[in-house]
Amino acid sequence: MTITTLSLTDALAQTAREVEAALDDLLPMPDGAEARVVNAMRYAVMGGGKRMRAFMVMETASLFGVDRRCSARVAASVEMLHAYSLVHDDLPAMDDDDMRRGKPSTHKAFDEATAILAGDALLTRAFEVLAEPDTHSNPEARCELVVALGHAAGARGMVGGQMIDIASEGKTLTADEIGRLQALKTGRLIQYSAEAGAILGRANPMQRHLLVSYGRDVGAAFQIADDILDVEGTAEDVGKATGKDAAAGKATLVSILGLERAKLQADMLSRQAAEHLESFGEKSHLLRELAALVVARKS
Amino acid sequence: MTITTLSLTDALAQTAREVEAALDDLLPMPDGAEARVVNAMRYAVMGGGKRMRAFMVMETASLFGVDRRCSARVAASVEMLHAYSLVHDDLPAMDDDDMRRGKPSTHKAFDEATAILAGDALLTRAFEVLAEPDTHSNPEARCELVVALGHAAGARGMVGGQMIDIASEGKTLTADEIGRLQALKTGRLIQYSAEAGAILGRANPMQRHLLVSYGRDVGAAFQIADDILDVEGTAEDVGKATGKDAAAGKATLVSILGLERAKLQADMLSRQAAEHLESFGEKSHLLRELAALVVARKS
Repeated sequence: MTITTLSLTDALAQTAREVEAALDDLLPMPDGAEARVVNAMRYAVMGGGKRMRAFMVMETASLFGVDRRCSARVAASVEMLHAYSLVHDDLPAMDDDDMRRGKPSTHKAFDEATAILAGDALLTRAFEVLAEPDTHSNPEARCELVVALGHAAGARGMVGGQMIDIASEGKTLTADEIGRLQALKTGRLIQYSAEAGAILGRANPMQRHLLVSYGRDVGAAFQIADDILDVEGTAEDVGKATGKDAAAGKATLVSILGLERAKLQADMLSRQAAEHLESFGEKSHLLRELAALVVARKS
Repeated sequence: MTITTLSLTDALAQTAREVEAALDDLLPMPDGAEARVVNAMRYAVMGGGKRMRAFMVMETASLFGVDRRCSARVAASVEMLHAYSLVHDDLPAMDDDDMRRGKPSTHKAFDEATAILAGDALLTRAFEVLAEPDTHSNPEARCELVVALGHAAGARGMVGGQMIDIASEGKTLTADEIGRLQALKTGRLIQYSAEAGAILGRANPMQRHLLVSYGRDVGAAFQIADDILDVEGTAEDVGKATGKDAAAGKATLVSILGLERAKLQADMLSRQAAEHLESFGEKSHLLRELAALVVARKS
């Protein structure tokens, strides 16, 4: 048996293929008129994005030797959850974005009603998949996956962050308030992606804590990098409109701290994320490289 | 110990109080700006409706002697799921209803963005509660509750039915097609409400099959009765606009079969529902009375 060390780029591409296959399998097309909503679900979730969250699920799970067929299902759930949040956030009543990942957002490609329903059904399917027997032989682990995702995604997590974001438009937030908003809105799901590996691997409390800390710091670094890209990037690179935050009068850490200090903070969080994984040794190298990549990316 | 036999009216009222207390407990108010979405969730789910689905969960569970604190949590989940579906269905991009249960619908009382998020968070919380340890001591049962709800609520259940409904506006459906649409859109969640009791009670396959059949027939009878009320009822009685189906050009079984034949079919389904419970004996009398009530109700 030859042990090959994959580069991060190759490993990301391999995970993307595995999660794509899992999504294809988990979202079969029905025959009736309800096929339209499944088409919209597949449009929203398949063939797009860097699959960073999926990669975190599968790489953290592989620290514990979890079967990749199991972790791919959880990765697919997280991507469905993420895709639902983008579909609903893009709606005219929310952020009103016409483009996503370089193509028309779901409500432009279909219509608003279909987009609302597709988001609802992706959210529903995400939870259903986690609880199905194929996801883990231990039902306690499956319940933990559901509870932790509910916590990350609900009114005290992602949805709460989006609510704060909408309620804050035109208001001046402090750096702390922006940090909390972003921790809820984007951080919690990224944090969950690392925690899910610990749950699948039946990690001990210290290991789970370290992976949660890694996910939290990667999420925070990722969000600051995203805000920097919104200022520095071009729409072509990023695949969606840039300069939107400033146009909407939305404060970000970049607008409060300035570009240079924001970059320093993202770098600090990225290094801190990697340090949480030191006790896992060499097998965590791709996750540590990922922490560096999220602040170095150009799109 | 005195055994008192509650009337169905009293039993419904008692369940409504229990599920209201459970919802209050399960939806605590946070401190931050995200409180707005929890306010909207509570507005949508509390203090309203007949709690028929909750009653079915708790009464079917009580056939097996399930602790009412456990079944009240599942009942609260089903009511959260039902409330989310109403909040999203009432949106301007969907059925565009300004009134619900005799008060402004959630997007009128708050705004569209908050209503979308409140629906999302109710759906999320429903799954989270089912998987939490307090819901059942056996994690296998909790997973089964999650999977069955996902099946009832997703693209092959409630959301699929809503998609067919929207896609069918202005089209002529056959009685069979309408029956399928309604089985998905409203039937599956009512069916789940009866199945949930079987799951909580670790029923044997035959018992579970009988309760699923009961739920399916009650759901179908309920929907025909709803369509009859839309024709015969006044907005004041029903608590929402009536005559909407005809105005929207939506075909119902009433418009296809005529009022008298529709009433006969609802009565047949109601009797059939009650018959599925015969083997459970006297302790199922409230559920059998409920099957009669759904076709006799005036609101």
